[in-house]
Amino acid sequence: MTDDAADSDETDVAADDEDTNPVAEIAERASNDPFCETVGIDLASVHPGYAETMLTVEERHLNFHGTPHGGAVYALADAAFAAASNTGSKTAVALETNISYFAAVDVGETLRAVAEETHLGGRTAAYDVRVTDETGDPVATFRGRVYRFDD
Amino acid sequence: MTDDAADSDETDVAADDEDTNPVAEIAERASNDPFCETVGIDLASVHPGYAETMLTVEERHLNFHGTPHGGAVYALADAAFAAASNTGSKTAVALETNISYFAAVDVGETLRAVAEETHLGGRTAAYDVRVTDETGDPVATFRGRVYRFDD
Amino acid sequence: MTDDAADSDETDVAADDEDTNPVAEIAERASNDPFCETVGIDLASVHPGYAETMLTVEERHLNFHGTPHGGAVYALADAAFAAASNTGSKTAVALETNISYFAAVDVGETLRAVAEETHLGGRTAAYDVRVTDETGDPVATFRGRVYRFDD
Amino acid sequence: MTDDAADSDETDVAADDEDTNPVAEIAERASNDPFCETVGIDLASVHPGYAETMLTVEERHLNFHGTPHGGAVYALADAAFAAASNTGSKTAVALETNISYFAAVDVGETLRAVAEETHLGGRTAAYDVRVTDETGDPVATFRGRVYRFDD
Repeated sequence: MTDDAADSDETDVAADDEDTNPVAEIAERASNDPFCETVGIDLASVHPGYAETMLTVEERHLNFHGTPHGGAVYALADAAFAAASNTGSKTAVALETNISYFAAVDVGETLRAVAEETHLGGRTAAYDVRVTDETGDPVATFRGRVYRFDD
Repeated sequence: MTDDAADSDETDVAADDEDTNPVAEIAERASNDPFCETVGIDLASVHPGYAETMLTVEERHLNFHGTPHGGAVYALADAAFAAASNTGSKTAVALETNISYFAAVDVGETLRAVAEETHLGGRTAAYDVRVTDETGDPVATFRGRVYRFDD
Repeated sequence: MTDDAADSDETDVAADDEDTNPVAEIAERASNDPFCETVGIDLASVHPGYAETMLTVEERHLNFHGTPHGGAVYALADAAFAAASNTGSKTAVALETNISYFAAVDVGETLRAVAEETHLGGRTAAYDVRVTDETGDPVATFRGRVYRFDD
Repeated sequence: MTDDAADSDETDVAADDEDTNPVAEIAERASNDPFCETVGIDLASVHPGYAETMLTVEERHLNFHGTPHGGAVYALADAAFAAASNTGSKTAVALETNISYFAAVDVGETLRAVAEETHLGGRTAAYDVRVTDETGDPVATFRGRVYRFDD
């Protein structure tokens, strides 16, 4: 994830006016997320109530069993959830999340997380996130609930 | 987390025979967990069905709101859960986890996660993890369920 | 839910040989589930890895706020999850579930829960359940993980 | 659960002025919860941020495996959560809950759920609920998050 990710070909942002559009603004901010940069998570796509993130698994993402650490898979899903939930006019912060782990992948494989809005209320919203491997097989399923602040 | 963490003063391991004791063995392996090293998570204590981990929050752990990323807090809790659940004779892998976020902390603060076994069955086990700040105030609560393999 | 529900028009079972087909067998057993009978939950459809249940909300399903009790909505989702997860050759029991509540409905409304398999492993499996009102609007989202025994 | 449960010996309410005390008020309202009455759940104790509920398992609470239905165990935990979270001055409604199932019990056994507040924020609060059997062994662990409305 680089400073210009929001303008790159890989980031498919459904907006062209960065100054005023909340989707473009969150795409730029999420593309510069410090922890995503630490882990190596890239923001691939942002639309209203929707986001995709990617992570190519390296040795440094493994746990002591030699498989991708739950924290790395979770962070990938959480980053998609955070971006998707902040595409509106309110600031969204996570209240509760949960994740089911299904399968491990090898080093070198690129994981993709897709977050979709399932509920948008006045004060809270909910998102389903699916993490898949390169063949589209499920790796994990995540759900998150945010609280939405007026700015 | 360094290679000699299992022998350091900070790691309080309830065993002194590294070759045969599963607690000592998991302490050494978990102290060398690659993703924990990437994030900066230290293993502070391991006992049967129990583990503590620590993370000092840096700028690189923040999200785009400027608060600790959920993925960093989760990874801290998950690391305690992973260590605690692998102190027995079976290999434990995460099936399901969930986390509730309560409060954010500032850069420089050290978070602590304490994992305790709440259920040990033949094939699965469950752990509660509490993440607190330096004053002991709750930051997050996590619960995880593992599947346990015969080696 | 009556003894002959498995043969009724409302129960859409993808099988016609009750003696040997696990889907037909589970349809009959789930149609006679005592707690579903207590609550008033009907099994509407069972296919491999899939089930639908229905509940018409009555006064007796309300909580002290005057809205459908979480336990009633959960039981509806859980019943679909239980039926869907037992359509295979193994006996499935719940390890972990979670539910997000989105909206309340009025007395007289019929809720529908649809459970779909998202993962089928050797020892565990996972299901997403969506609870909707009569117009198809989301009421709750549920996810469950089962352990699967050899009989 | 009967209309006079709030005044019975079994209901240990930390208040003696029912007209103005929110704990006494919620004890009375929760003791008359229609769904709890349907299922047979009794409110045993209510204090600020704390509640206990009980359920004696009958044949009508079983699932098609012949063990207590997840929906019955969940409803017991959820009822304790609902009472505990409404002991303050705000109306609390469930956003998210999750439950881990550990063990089944036999018909005739009385289950007890104890809900304790783990976080009280301005708009949300969190509760841990432990369900145990008559010997105090864990049957399930539940966690719930509420949204709190100003009345």
